[in-house]
Amino acid sequence: MKGIILIMDGMGDRPIKELGNQTPLQAANTPNMNEMVKNGITGIMDSIAPGIIPGSDTAHLSILGYDPYVVYTGRGPFEATGVNIDVEEGDIAFRCNFSTRNEEGIVTDRRAGRIRDKTEELAKAINSMKLEDYPNLKIIFKESTGYRSVLVIRDSGLSDKVSDADPKVDGKKVKKIVPLDDTKEAKKTADILNQIIEKSYTLLKDHPVNIERIKNNKDPANVIIPRGAGAVPTVEKINSKYNINSACIAETGLIMGICRLAGMDIVEMEGVTGGIDTNLEVIRDTILDKVKNSEHDFFLVNIDGADEAGHDGMAKDKKEFIEKVDEVVMSEIKNLEDVYIFLTADHSTPVSVMNHSGDSVPVLIKGPEIRVDDVEKFSEIDVAKGGLCRIRGSDVMNIMMDLIGNSEKFGA
Amino acid sequence: MKGIILIMDGMGDRPIKELGNQTPLQAANTPNMNEMVKNGITGIMDSIAPGIIPGSDTAHLSILGYDPYVVYTGRGPFEATGVNIDVEEGDIAFRCNFSTRNEEGIVTDRRAGRIRDKTEELAKAINSMKLEDYPNLKIIFKESTGYRSVLVIRDSGLSDKVSDADPKVDGKKVKKIVPLDDTKEAKKTADILNQIIEKSYTLLKDHPVNIERIKNNKDPANVIIPRGAGAVPTVEKINSKYNINSACIAETGLIMGICRLAGMDIVEMEGVTGGIDTNLEVIRDTILDKVKNSEHDFFLVNIDGADEAGHDGMAKDKKEFIEKVDEVVMSEIKNLEDVYIFLTADHSTPVSVMNHSGDSVPVLIKGPEIRVDDVEKFSEIDVAKGGLCRIRGSDVMNIMMDLIGNSEKFGA
Repeated sequence: MKGIILIMDGMGDRPIKELGNQTPLQAANTPNMNEMVKNGITGIMDSIAPGIIPGSDTAHLSILGYDPYVVYTGRGPFEATGVNIDVEEGDIAFRCNFSTRNEEGIVTDRRAGRIRDKTEELAKAINSMKLEDYPNLKIIFKESTGYRSVLVIRDSGLSDKVSDADPKVDGKKVKKIVPLDDTKEAKKTADILNQIIEKSYTLLKDHPVNIERIKNNKDPANVIIPRGAGAVPTVEKINSKYNINSACIAETGLIMGICRLAGMDIVEMEGVTGGIDTNLEVIRDTILDKVKNSEHDFFLVNIDGADEAGHDGMAKDKKEFIEKVDEVVMSEIKNLEDVYIFLTADHSTPVSVMNHSGDSVPVLIKGPEIRVDDVEKFSEIDVAKGGLCRIRGSDVMNIMMDLIGNSEKFGA
Repeated sequence: MKGIILIMDGMGDRPIKELGNQTPLQAANTPNMNEMVKNGITGIMDSIAPGIIPGSDTAHLSILGYDPYVVYTGRGPFEATGVNIDVEEGDIAFRCNFSTRNEEGIVTDRRAGRIRDKTEELAKAINSMKLEDYPNLKIIFKESTGYRSVLVIRDSGLSDKVSDADPKVDGKKVKKIVPLDDTKEAKKTADILNQIIEKSYTLLKDHPVNIERIKNNKDPANVIIPRGAGAVPTVEKINSKYNINSACIAETGLIMGICRLAGMDIVEMEGVTGGIDTNLEVIRDTILDKVKNSEHDFFLVNIDGADEAGHDGMAKDKKEFIEKVDEVVMSEIKNLEDVYIFLTADHSTPVSVMNHSGDSVPVLIKGPEIRVDDVEKFSEIDVAKGGLCRIRGSDVMNIMMDLIGNSEKFGA
């Protein structure tokens, strides 16, 4: 028996006037999901807890059976996994800005003129950096979106107990990073960071990309400013924790990063974008192929488009994307046999909020031996009358493992 | 006001083809339970947490207000209470096999030819054992079902941090028990155990029961092999914890053992079997008599037959047993006045699984001042729409104590 957790990222929503005071999911024509509902059990779910606004990262951690309040050590490590840096336990990761400083060290623009282009070339210059004082230190640096980037340092004896370099406002000096406790690890890490910041200026100030930016009257991205230090957490691998052979089918680096941290195999897909223009046929065919032909028995699938439409405030787009997923993906998924399918969202991304919210999300479980309730439509409101009542993200793996026969009895 | 928690052991189930894709409870004709539902409030319950597969022991601990993750110290102590050994706090208990060893100490059959008969005579021989080195040591030994038995040792300065003697496979020597930490308590306990194992061979090898077995070409049960050491936990007595006067009306040793550990009075019943052939009239009359005539104000009742039918994979038997309980027991229980009745199961034992599962169980509370919802049938699906929504085993005692007016306000 196999199991699929299929997450429609950000699918949950609130009633929207434009859609006749319905949510996009309520308003959507979803015959295939509704058929699954009629053969399944439904309910609502709080990925973390009622009213708590989850990130996609913390929500997925919770749904995969990890306590985000324990495992989520800060944005750094998850940003790093999100840009496909293959982090290791013990690495210290930082979110960074490309910024502009002058010769006196004053930050004149924290976002380097909101640079968007050629940051990968700048990143390459940093990524090759070596520090003479720390011959064993490995520095990994990668651009993210816009002026954002990620720094990972790897060495023995490091600590995440160091301050930020970000002065928070323009017109101030890059802050010297200081240790936040008395350990030699924190002192070493702070010294390394200060050297990296200083050296980034040396490496970037005359970089061809910046020469060109200055010529075009744009602020050069001539220094990196790290913040949000976090140690890559030690995470019990999901395969040994639950005795499964698991794979991740996802579009975005952030979700793949979390699954990689959990030790899951990452399935590569061509032509997917993470947006509403993604290639749903590829996602569908990948799911069908892997479920039928691979040795994996557990899958985490994430389809991202509904979240994007929510962030962009596009009600009609969100509704239409949900309909497209129903038509292209669910029409086939619903026919899988000997598979338990747990269909849900990681969080709500209401069109009116244009960001995540703490509203619960709908849940549907379909499979061979499921107790079937009398709910007939997959929507945030209808499923609240279902046989699951209200569960939490932290229940998902336990429920799934019980259903696919992968759990052990606690007691006699 | 009195309270009864009435547990139909293993009653929860999944839809079964043979029963028209209904669960046994759904399919069962239960006019009396349905009448209680119409005058009560309903919901679903996870004895421990959603998806977690409870044992009957851990589920009952949770329902009685104890955290099984704290209190459940291993099988040994609960097996011991299960065979009616009156354990005391600090006792160390072990599950044992009667096994067969040869003169060189090699275990030739871990289950002593799956011995079934006269184990009580063999157990008596061990139960009288004394060790010269430990004059204050008390050794309690009792047969369980088949080749299984239980050993309890009582003395000052003992520990449950000792290894198992079980070689796990035939053809190997009885393993020497070793201390698992550096304490003198663990060393003492390991030494005691090794002496008991050795002496058991001396006491059993020429025992008349074994002489006869050898004559009949059966493996002699000539050594005991202990495993699963557990210290009997310190448990706050339920009567003082909740200010009640409680009694247990149960069929099986395991449930009586847990209730005894909780300090409840154990009501003896004649003619009950724990199976679907049990004498339900006796159980009914015992409940009615004790509720009306005893000074107890709180009862834990356990009726075991549905669990047996589930373990045996007998859908029709399970349905019919539920109907019989409805007809014989509920027909009278439903008329009790000034009593709150909490009707539920400790866990699901789906016929298809033939073992416990993590599916939630139905809950019904009936009593003088209960909020009545509009559910009309007692089943796993119907009650999910009830006024209680989804609760946990750990909520039961708090809800019950509030209803019978036995709780104090927390705050002003």
